[in-house]
This record gives sequence, structure tokens and C-alpha cells, in this order.
Amino acid sequence: MMTTVQEAEKLILAQLRDYSTENMGFEQALGRVLAEPIKADRDLPPFNRVTMDGIAINYAAIEKGISTFKIKATQAAGDEPAAIEELDECIEIMTGAVMPASVNTVIRYEDVEIRAGLASLHTRDIKPGQNLHLQGADKKDGDTLALPGQLITPAIISLAASVGKAHLLVKNVPRVVIISSGDELVDVHQTPSPYQIRKSNSYTVKAVLRLHGLKPDIIHIPDDPEVTRQQIQQCLQNYDVLLLSGGISMGKFDYIPQALEDLQVKKVFHKVAQRPGKPFWFGRHQSGILVFAFPGNPVATFMCLHKYFLTWLSATLGLAEQAPLYAVLDSDFSFQPPLQYFLQVKLQSNAQGLLMAKPIEGNGSGDFANLADTDAFLELPLERNDFRKGEVLRVLRFD
Amino acid sequence: MMTTVQEAEKLILAQLRDYSTENMGFEQALGRVLAEPIKADRDLPPFNRVTMDGIAINYAAIEKGISTFKIKATQAAGDEPAAIEELDECIEIMTGAVMPASVNTVIRYEDVEIRAGLASLHTRDIKPGQNLHLQGADKKDGDTLALPGQLITPAIISLAASVGKAHLLVKNVPRVVIISSGDELVDVHQTPSPYQIRKSNSYTVKAVLRLHGLKPDIIHIPDDPEVTRQQIQQCLQNYDVLLLSGGISMGKFDYIPQALEDLQVKKVFHKVAQRPGKPFWFGRHQSGILVFAFPGNPVATFMCLHKYFLTWLSATLGLAEQAPLYAVLDSDFSFQPPLQYFLQVKLQSNAQGLLMAKPIEGNGSGDFANLADTDAFLELPLERNDFRKGEVLRVLRFD
Repeated sequence: MMTTVQEAEKLILAQLRDYSTENMGFEQALGRVLAEPIKADRDLPPFNRVTMDGIAINYAAIEKGISTFKIKATQAAGDEPAAIEELDECIEIMTGAVMPASVNTVIRYEDVEIRAGLASLHTRDIKPGQNLHLQGADKKDGDTLALPGQLITPAIISLAASVGKAHLLVKNVPRVVIISSGDELVDVHQTPSPYQIRKSNSYTVKAVLRLHGLKPDIIHIPDDPEVTRQQIQQCLQNYDVLLLSGGISMGKFDYIPQALEDLQVKKVFHKVAQRPGKPFWFGRHQSGILVFAFPGNPVATFMCLHKYFLTWLSATLGLAEQAPLYAVLDSDFSFQPPLQYFLQVKLQSNAQGLLMAKPIEGNGSGDFANLADTDAFLELPLERNDFRKGEVLRVLRFD
Repeated sequence: MMTTVQEAEKLILAQLRDYSTENMGFEQALGRVLAEPIKADRDLPPFNRVTMDGIAINYAAIEKGISTFKIKATQAAGDEPAAIEELDECIEIMTGAVMPASVNTVIRYEDVEIRAGLASLHTRDIKPGQNLHLQGADKKDGDTLALPGQLITPAIISLAASVGKAHLLVKNVPRVVIISSGDELVDVHQTPSPYQIRKSNSYTVKAVLRLHGLKPDIIHIPDDPEVTRQQIQQCLQNYDVLLLSGGISMGKFDYIPQALEDLQVKKVFHKVAQRPGKPFWFGRHQSGILVFAFPGNPVATFMCLHKYFLTWLSATLGLAEQAPLYAVLDSDFSFQPPLQYFLQVKLQSNAQGLLMAKPIEGNGSGDFANLADTDAFLELPLERNDFRKGEVLRVLRFD
């Protein structure tokens, strides 16, 4: 029995690792995973904060019918609080200023006429305590604002800045090397012979990983058993994860399986009941190093990278689990082989709030030109062959 | 009449700019906007490509009942094609290899037994032309694979690599400066007095812009009219867009409006019928430089940045317009003021394929701690006050 997609995922998630943490400037931490809580270092807001430019009065004056106030002082944001002594006095006060203790109500400029040091009210619609954001209304000193395992988004950067966390403790990411192989591949700037093609998978994988905060290296291994062995050995010394694209088939010139065996990388599984990506191989070294060997064709590599490696990466970094995404199949679709099919789709939100998945089929898993027109794989379960328009299925979105 | 959200958007989109293009290494171009088409430099695949390891035969042999073949040659991916001369000959051939002209069908290793230079078939289930990906099946030489205006995703990186585009022409992005002001703000690593707070908006804006491929600078202007004027003047010399957070209110110590007026930055509009973000100011200099002056409170700045600046940026870069996103309001919600309300929500896909929007209200627009718990603003139209659970509304997703 071939490994199912669900079993493969489970076996991979049984291999979580801890790559420790590192401390870095809070701006650099964008896109990384938080490894410490962020706590309020004082109440938020830290004081009763004025939210409108205008005048501050004691509301008792309104109750007494006072409608003209002597301007006792002017107070900007950042200034020490001023004070009034009499009910017919006011403070001209700016947004962001600390509300002084002797006043309790702010009336905005639009409702006031100011002339010769006097402020006269234009309105009777005044409530006590208006135009204030009260100390601690959002959070109290010591409250937790963000938890470990949180992706560091711009909103988290904002929180960190607000509470003075100029450095953040973040999860270390694994050192990843992307390995391509085979003399049929030439590099991007080279001209392939009529029998060769250009290397593209490694760059695709690297681009996806960069979007997820990793800085992988790329190497290419030629079709030579000794060189293959040496290079894989070096990779096992220098990296936490090896991502291979191609080279794991039964082909005569695929020296990588032998090199992995010689170097004590044990197979966890080989072949998954899925299309694309059936020849996917996953193994581990006793040191803990993991090897994801994706099939050589571009769509298979792309799918396996998102379905397996990124899922493993999120789990290993302790990133809070993402809720599953569902979409509605937009046309009938049949698929006979006993494999879980990952159908390339274009997602679109409709005016009913439904996420619709429109199949955009290329010419099989070798057709990478099709990837650019799609943004997700719809997961068609193994047990069935016929899928109807309107069915709701799980979606694997990609970058 | 206050400017509506729709009018504001229209006025901003009337100010598109062309910042020209630049050529860069294809890997660096990730996240940028493509400014040239990517075309196939040969057929894709470039030859009839073998998709399984096994043996290649002429199907005429099967029709004649031949089931054992002499192995005439072995051909790996990247090799020059071999040839057979007789029908009872075969070529041992690897995935990715060029299919030789003298054969037309590939039988995978699993269906063959190889011994002493002979390959015997295990199966009768053989179709002519099987296990081949035919030349030009995906794209023809000269076909366009990606168009200008396409965001450069990993899939586009893949296409570029495949066709040998080691450099890509991309849209230049505007030079942006983020300006904060006011003596009440101190920097992240400083300790605020009891009347001050830390600068956070600038860092939030910078983080969002970095996710969109920009590299903005940050400056802070103190409460001093002459310094304000000088610094704004310098910004008008060095940048294409000024993004201000705060400093545009009617406050006595807001020197920025005067400086902008003195420096010939003309107001396009001031105040939009929205919450948060009502005091939003937008203007332009005759040189073409644009000034987005967001209100000082964090949620307002965050909303305006996504709703207005990023929409303008996408349009200015010629990025293909994104389809609108809709979600279902998950509980009743009322909002009385005559303003378009941008409700903070957490989106979640449900098992019916509906995108549900759960309101997560903070304590108004000063409550930035709430932003980290949400991922979108639901746009509640100006014309209505009561919204019911189950209504479908437009969503502004954020990073």
C-alpha cells in the first residue's frame, strides 16, 4: 500500500525540530515567528488622552450654565499638564495631550469660538468625559499583547515599537539547502543544448522560501557518483534540511539514493498516493537532519513544497496553526487513478461571500507555465473519482 | 459635504504616476511588478520528453507480438538521442531524456524485467506514445508566458529561469518617506516621560511597505515651524511620495499644514466621511509629488495606508487589478454616525466555502493592540446604520 497524503503529512509532522531562538532588531523581525510574549510596559493609553483639538473644561461649569471660558493655558501633546482654578476657566488643549486633573471634558474647536483670550461655546450638546481615551482603556500595564508563536506582522511591529521592544526574540529558522542534479540541467544564463533544459525548480523553491523568511542556498550536483556522495556529505554537515528536486527516481544515473543510503539517511517513506508528486521521498539522518526529495517536475515540486515542507516549517517554528481554507468547485471534474489529486485552481470571491475554485488544468505536472495562472491547489480526496460543481473542498493556497 | 470614500479613492486614482522601469537580476525581482513580457525561447517542452525511467521501443513491435528486446543503448537525460535499427531492440532511457526518432513508446521499469542485456515485458497494457510529454505541448516558441503588470511571484521566477531570463525589466517603485511629527513622540529605544508615547506608526507603515517591495525612509519632525518647513522642503526634493502620520489636525502646534501650503503642496481633499481616518488629507505638489497625510491614530493610519496608498501604488505600477473580496458578516452590527465604517474583523473560511467575518472591536481607532487579532476591515456602506448577521460586504484584507 502506498503512503497516503494524510499518512505522509503525519510522518513528516512527527519530525519537528527545535532550532532555538535569536534576538534581533524589531524591524528585521518582520515575517519571523515570535519566541517571547510582548507585554504592555505601562497602561495603554498611558494617561487620559485627549482625542480632539479644542478646549478642556470641568463639566460642572456646563451644569451651572457657564458658556464662556477664560483660556488659562495652552497645552500641547507631550507637555506637562496645565491646571484651572475656577469653573469659568479652560485649557486650550491638543490631540494626544495628557488630560489635566482639574478638567474632565474636551470640546472640539469646531464647537467653540475663540476671541481675545475667551472661548465661547457654539453647542449645547456636551457630555461629561467626551473626547477622551481613558488611561488603560485598551490594555493594562503588564497585559500580554502578543504571544510566542505569533507571526511577526506589521501590527506586531507596531506593538513592539509602542512598548519599547527595540529587540525581539524570534525563532531561528532551519538552514536549508536546495539541491538539483543531473547533467541535463544548465543554469539560467547558459544556453541549453537541444537535449538539455534550464534549471528552474531550485529558483522557484528559493523564492517561496524567501517569502517565508528563509535564506536557502542552492547547489547543483552533476551526474557523478563520487561527487554526489561528497556533496551530499557536505550538505549533511552544513544544513538542517536538504530539499532535493529530482534525482530520486529509479533512473540509472540517479546517484542520489545510493549516496543518501551510504551516508545513513534513512527513508521514512517513498511514494505518496497523490498526483502530482507521487515519487516524493522523505528521510532523516540520525543527527536529526531531514531530507525532502521532491520529484523533478516543476508542479510536483511546487505542490510538495507547499503541502509538506511549509506545513512542517510552520509546525517546527511553533506558528499558531492556520484554520483550513475551503472553496467551492466551479465545474465538474473527474479523475480516475487511485491517487489524491491536487487540482490547480484560480480562486475568486463571489458576491455571496463564497470562495469559488475554477479548475485551470495544464498539460500535467510538467506544465509549469500554468502555475502562474493559478493560486491554489484544490485537494480532491483519494476515495472518490467524480467531483461535482458546487462541492466544497479543502484548498492549499500558494504564494 | 465631506468627501466620500468613493470620491477620495477616485481623486487619488486620478494621480497615477510613472516611475519608469529598471532591469534587475531575476531573483531580486521577486515581489516587484513585471514591465516586459516573458516569452518562450523555444517550445515547452523543447523536445519529446520522456516522463518515466524504463525502455523505449517502437510500438510496431508490440503489434507484431514481440515481448523481449535487446538493449541497444542507454540514454540519460541530457544525452544525445540514441537509435535502434530493428524492432526487437530497445533503448534503456531515463526521465527527462529526449525521445529518439526511432522509438515512440516508453515502458516503465516496473513493467519490465531486465537480465543479461535483454528487457522482457511484464505487461500487455501498453499504448503507443505513452509516457511522453510532447514537444510544444505546453507552449510554442515565442508564446507569451507572462505579461507586463504581473506581480513577480515564485511561479514567474520559475518561468523566467526556464526561458533564460537572468534579468527582468520591472517597474520602478516610488521613493517614499514616512514622516512623523510632534514632541510627544519618543523613539522605540527611549523612555517616554509620563506625558509622552513611543513612535510606532512610522514603523508599522514601513513594515507594510516593505512587504510590498518598497524601501521607505523614516524621519521625525519636531514641533518647530522653521525646522518643519526645512524638512518638508528636503523631502519634496528627495522623494516621490510623502506619507505623514499625524500633524494635519487643527492643533495649535501642527506646523505641517502651514509648511505644506508655503511649499506649494495643494490640497486635493481634507476629511473623508469614514471612521477611522476622518481627518485624512491628500495633496499634490506641481512637480507631481504626492502627499498622503494620515491621521495620527494607529488604526486610522493602518486603514488609510491599505485603502488608499496601496490601492494607488498597485494602480501606479500597473499591477493587474485584484478581484474584490467579499465576506459574510458574522453578527449584527450597528453604527450611527454618517460615516463609512471600516469594521475590524477576523476572517475565517467555513465548511460551506463561505468567508465569514467576525467583528473584533477594540476601543476605537486608538486601540492598536486590537489590530494583531484581526486580518481585515469590513466596509460598512455610508448609507446605512444597521447591518445584520449574514449580510455579504466588501472586505479590505491587510498584511
